[in-house]
Amino acid sequence: MSIFERARELSIIQSSAAVIGWDQETCLPKSAAGHRAAQLAWLSSQAHELATSEDWKRGLEAAENSNPGSDPKLTANLRELRREFDRATKLPTELVARESTASSLAKHAWADARKKSDFASFAPHLATLLDIAREKADLWGHSGEPYDALLEGYERGTSTATVAALFDTMKPALRETAAKAVEKSAARAAKLPPGPYPVAAQQQLNARIAEAVGFDFQAGRIDTTTHPFCTTLGPHDVRLTTRYDESDFTSSLFGVLHEAGHGMYEQGLPAADYGLPSGSAVSLGIHESQSRLWENHVGRSRAFWTRWYPVAQEHFPQLADFPLDDFMAYLHRAAFSPIRVEADEATYDLHIILRFGIERRLLNGDLAVADVPAAWNESFRELFGFTPENDAMGCLQDIHWSMGGLGYFATYTLGNINAAQLFAAARNNPAIAAACDAADYAPLLDWLRENIHAHGGTLDPADLMAQATGRPPATTDYLAHLESRYL
Amino acid sequence: MSIFERARELSIIQSSAAVIGWDQETCLPKSAAGHRAAQLAWLSSQAHELATSEDWKRGLEAAENSNPGSDPKLTANLRELRREFDRATKLPTELVARESTASSLAKHAWADARKKSDFASFAPHLATLLDIAREKADLWGHSGEPYDALLEGYERGTSTATVAALFDTMKPALRETAAKAVEKSAARAAKLPPGPYPVAAQQQLNARIAEAVGFDFQAGRIDTTTHPFCTTLGPHDVRLTTRYDESDFTSSLFGVLHEAGHGMYEQGLPAADYGLPSGSAVSLGIHESQSRLWENHVGRSRAFWTRWYPVAQEHFPQLADFPLDDFMAYLHRAAFSPIRVEADEATYDLHIILRFGIERRLLNGDLAVADVPAAWNESFRELFGFTPENDAMGCLQDIHWSMGGLGYFATYTLGNINAAQLFAAARNNPAIAAACDAADYAPLLDWLRENIHAHGGTLDPADLMAQATGRPPATTDYLAHLESRYL
Repeated sequence: MSIFERARELSIIQSSAAVIGWDQETCLPKSAAGHRAAQLAWLSSQAHELATSEDWKRGLEAAENSNPGSDPKLTANLRELRREFDRATKLPTELVARESTASSLAKHAWADARKKSDFASFAPHLATLLDIAREKADLWGHSGEPYDALLEGYERGTSTATVAALFDTMKPALRETAAKAVEKSAARAAKLPPGPYPVAAQQQLNARIAEAVGFDFQAGRIDTTTHPFCTTLGPHDVRLTTRYDESDFTSSLFGVLHEAGHGMYEQGLPAADYGLPSGSAVSLGIHESQSRLWENHVGRSRAFWTRWYPVAQEHFPQLADFPLDDFMAYLHRAAFSPIRVEADEATYDLHIILRFGIERRLLNGDLAVADVPAAWNESFRELFGFTPENDAMGCLQDIHWSMGGLGYFATYTLGNINAAQLFAAARNNPAIAAACDAADYAPLLDWLRENIHAHGGTLDPADLMAQATGRPPATTDYLAHLESRYL
Repeated sequence: MSIFERARELSIIQSSAAVIGWDQETCLPKSAAGHRAAQLAWLSSQAHELATSEDWKRGLEAAENSNPGSDPKLTANLRELRREFDRATKLPTELVARESTASSLAKHAWADARKKSDFASFAPHLATLLDIAREKADLWGHSGEPYDALLEGYERGTSTATVAALFDTMKPALRETAAKAVEKSAARAAKLPPGPYPVAAQQQLNARIAEAVGFDFQAGRIDTTTHPFCTTLGPHDVRLTTRYDESDFTSSLFGVLHEAGHGMYEQGLPAADYGLPSGSAVSLGIHESQSRLWENHVGRSRAFWTRWYPVAQEHFPQLADFPLDDFMAYLHRAAFSPIRVEADEATYDLHIILRFGIERRLLNGDLAVADVPAAWNESFRELFGFTPENDAMGCLQDIHWSMGGLGYFATYTLGNINAAQLFAAARNNPAIAAACDAADYAPLLDWLRENIHAHGGTLDPADLMAQATGRPPATTDYLAHLESRYL
């Protein structure tokens, strides 16, 4: 069997796990967690066995040996399949199954721990997942910085040192902009008219807007979870989730715009190449650039709301006498929130810088799991000037660690940097800029399809950025965007 | 690896397919059908490969050879695993995968065909599935009656001739009761007050009643589909579905009661034996007895509504001035409907007798696929006295054939027969009868747990019925029930 047929089989196994994982997050009855973990562990070990099999290796070698080198896509696919194979074969099947079981159980423990703000009940799960992460990093290899080996899996070709340098460069400007934005916002005291904003009306408005910006509901849907996400269950099956707050309809809406950004990237990948690198997203930092672009650069722009605010007013009568100016001030308010997913653009990256530091120390063994709450609160005070009132609002707020997603958070800020750079580059085309200013986003989506989505994973993220925008990721456009929006 | 560990692995694969199948019915975006079929085909072929492997065979033989014979459950498990193995090894993997793909595609074709009442577009799919069914029956072996080999998979130990004899005995009495019930009902013209009965209020009432009769929502949930069903995704994960009609809340409610009957059976099976015969439902005729018992014997009784009608009136203000007597007359109305799932108890089995006859002829080669609409309409006229107005209301109404479910329909009437016999036997206990009369169904559910659910698949259905009620399935209790309810 050829490596391409094998890769298709692997995509069937992995997407089956995606269906089961989606169901676990959206629909699972309380008593059913144990068996669900066993299902995911089985599929995960099947996938690992296949992707590390002798058959796979022989198929890959045969394709490499017969590659004439004249087809860049074929060459890129073989290069990336080789990279993934070499990474995968360094992990024993037993470790992969152990991680899947541990993270399935940890996710449920985390949900309970967050509810009770009880870090101690989650700590043993986190310790297990950290041990597994270090074990993986050591197997993959690194020169003293385990974070490097983990980051490579999310953002290939990007080092921890590169990320740290970008973050260090940004930090003073970010803190300054954030502090000024928070001060300015406090003076205006922008408030949305009181709710309820009924869930059913939110769902209607969200779906209408998601469809209008280009999310294809024939190949996707929106459901409800505690923590919004986007997952792909097959080449034409992209699932978004959001959560509802009846006192603020913008919470679910920006959740949907964010996840629809991810979803449109997935829907824009070449479906015929599903399961191959050329049909897959290249990295989390590029994925996040798509969500941030639609959420912040499109969704928080005045042009967007000039088009959509009257429609929102139809859905929510209490907005009738609330002027667009005040609504925009509300959308552009800034505050130092303890919660990352509720943070505004002005303060968001400070949350990431905090997590990046803590993870790096945990992985390097410079911080014990039991000390995470204290370290979190100290770092938080340094960056934000106050301490979260409890661990549910602090180190227990995110699902990521419970899923074994260590080395992951940094890619959010890479996404913000990339989003600003891509949006600026697209708007260099006057037709795209004019369309965006008229809230017509079809030309922008076309530009993204052509310059980002269509390439799948054939180029390294920094090279893809350079090809699309003229230079590798840099903080200039992003810091300029924040200043122009907030100051 | 022991046969019991293997059986557990098989249950993981099969329940993974159940998750994906459930999602396919409840959530699938329109464009995603193709890949979903590939996922189900892969899982189905993995399951078949495992259950027919040399490993499995050796494990089974080892367990058989070392069985001391002193543990009846172990002996029953090995006997049934052997029966299933012998059946499974007669089918090549290729045929199993082919059937899975064909039925995935046929289900979508059927849904479209029914919408357009276009039998011709479904006919090639049905022909393919019939060929596959005959191929399977021939591989399993039979003496000239392919239906026998298929029925054995649903109702082991029961022959087509036994079913035909039961049906022939019932038919005259059924037609007489049905005709009189329809006549009596027409004279009264029972009508529910006009809708809308809002979906949200129906969902609330349904959930409250399902919980009250004993369905465990910590281990299950209710969703929405065109055709109601119940499926088990794991030992504590039972999914029911129903459909909503805003002009009649009883439609979704009786759907839920019916499926909750299936669901409580699944929830009552020994969870520790999940994946083994002793932890699995024994047959469709027993499964259907549980759904019919809760739907008809409990849910359409006066005692039940003496308790629940005031609650329904709280949910639906238009019932305020509609007396319980009239409501009961509405529930006990009888009419000759073209649609099986809308048929009342008095006429339901005539629909089954029709399908049993057509399937048997199709399988025997006495009826061509193209002639199904004509044969259906002719048989329908004979039984009901009129012809369905189109194929959507006739031979296209049921999903079963599109899922390859040939030999299946007969078990519905076996279920009706069993339900009446079980309910009568349980009520022989005066404490259970008194509790039922006070709408307290915990003692009845306990009796079913002990006499049916706890046995899983360790006894043949006819023996299980004999042990629980004192005799094998007979039509007496059922015909008596219909007479007492309708005449």
